[in-house]
Amino acid sequence: MPLSIDFLARLRAIQQAKRSTLCVGLDPDLQRLPIHLVRDNDPADALVQFCLRIVEATHHAACAFKVNLAFFEVLGSEGWRALEQLCASTPADTLMIADAKRGDIGNSARFYAQATLEHLNCDAVTVAPYMGQDAVRPFLQYEGKAAFVLGHTSNPGRLDFQELDCAGTPLYRRVARQVAAWGAEAPGTAGLVVGATDAVAMATLRADVPDTPFLIPGVGAQGGDATSVMEAAATAEGLVLVNSSRGIIYASEGRDFAAQAGEAAATLRQTLWEALPNGAFG
Amino acid sequence: MPLSIDFLARLRAIQQAKRSTLCVGLDPDLQRLPIHLVRDNDPADALVQFCLRIVEATHHAACAFKVNLAFFEVLGSEGWRALEQLCASTPADTLMIADAKRGDIGNSARFYAQATLEHLNCDAVTVAPYMGQDAVRPFLQYEGKAAFVLGHTSNPGRLDFQELDCAGTPLYRRVARQVAAWGAEAPGTAGLVVGATDAVAMATLRADVPDTPFLIPGVGAQGGDATSVMEAAATAEGLVLVNSSRGIIYASEGRDFAAQAGEAAATLRQTLWEALPNGAFG
Repeated sequence: MPLSIDFLARLRAIQQAKRSTLCVGLDPDLQRLPIHLVRDNDPADALVQFCLRIVEATHHAACAFKVNLAFFEVLGSEGWRALEQLCASTPADTLMIADAKRGDIGNSARFYAQATLEHLNCDAVTVAPYMGQDAVRPFLQYEGKAAFVLGHTSNPGRLDFQELDCAGTPLYRRVARQVAAWGAEAPGTAGLVVGATDAVAMATLRADVPDTPFLIPGVGAQGGDATSVMEAAATAEGLVLVNSSRGIIYASEGRDFAAQAGEAAATLRQTLWEALPNGAFG
Repeated sequence: MPLSIDFLARLRAIQQAKRSTLCVGLDPDLQRLPIHLVRDNDPADALVQFCLRIVEATHHAACAFKVNLAFFEVLGSEGWRALEQLCASTPADTLMIADAKRGDIGNSARFYAQATLEHLNCDAVTVAPYMGQDAVRPFLQYEGKAAFVLGHTSNPGRLDFQELDCAGTPLYRRVARQVAAWGAEAPGTAGLVVGATDAVAMATLRADVPDTPFLIPGVGAQGGDATSVMEAAATAEGLVLVNSSRGIIYASEGRDFAAQAGEAAATLRQTLWEALPNGAFG
């Protein structure tokens, strides 16, 4: 479909066509890859080959992939070359999200946006909010693309700052409202990252920002429950992308890893779709 | 000097030997590089050649360089190859800081630390605090190295979140105290990024965290005044690294760019050193 359609419309169309809110997280760790891939390839090639096999085996069930840049960057320029290869092979019926969590200002922000949304040609990118609008807005300038800004994460360290009380409202709700306000200037370009492990906070955020799409990591290995996530966050206006990484890509450590990943993705896709509240997707 | 000496001790020794608190920011923008470099080289090679010339011409006056990863990453794997070349050429008498502003958790945080502090072998790295301790601590595990965490920045967007009132204290002061507490567990590993444009906030932070080194961008092109920065932040215990990028590296756009950068660096080094309050460096 043409890129002039906004990101949200593209996401909605793909989700409806595939009956899927599942995002498969590509976090390829050399320590956990099937041994034959690591043995027979140089490290960067092992990352690409693993991910391409996972993509091929799961894209029927996934509306998006989320590729974690850290797992490639650890190999430096060779890792970035692998990332380029992987992103150039995104299936046409699936979105690719660069999980980059970049957060800088001015030219730096523009260059990070260019690196992820132009050079890697991803459909969306994750962004960190601490530096404020100068760090977020440069990512909202791309027609048909989007930025998911860290809102409320599921790691223990969320307590350190995200949950601090700011004049009666926790910081993460301030961030969420502000991101939605910036996004309103360029509809369909701004989403939030909301961790799966706190369904109460998620429901509060959904009420705060009813139209903002949520990218939801933390289902599965990190402890989030798929059904309660869908109930708290999925509405007719509020799209969700539920990410699972380890539970899918490491479903098997043997030569059948891709087939097993495909089955795990299909199962989770169905669980999520069945948990869609009445009214979401009509 | 051996790497087992902690980062702060190394920084102090270099600053004393060179009588310099100056950090030169390497933000090589193809749009602003001398035209002959851009014309005669492919883009990534132009970045490296420009930076190597700047490093050679300014390292006598600088205690550190701060290389901004965004300006390389915009070229993808080729940019990362340039970054590898540049970081491998850091002069022995100067520290190299990766201005990466990464902020992720778990394996991602460890891989970003590995990418910057091992693969690129930088001496320090900038880190974003939003995800809390899980995002910061993995960067504090390197003997002889350090992380500078975003505290109070100088861009307009700092007002959006950093200055929010958290039960009587602005968020950036909460972040600063927390970072100092994490750093106390591994002395010499944790610093703060503190923008140069608000000397009052800087003095408050210095009183909050007297031993924490400050990396101070925003002098020169961004409007910060060198003398008031030194008065607010430099003490016998509290080291400062004052960064200038554009004012030095773009001192000339002609073939004399390196020589002009060298002169600009020498001048700013002296201004900063003369502004050191009595007592700093004994």
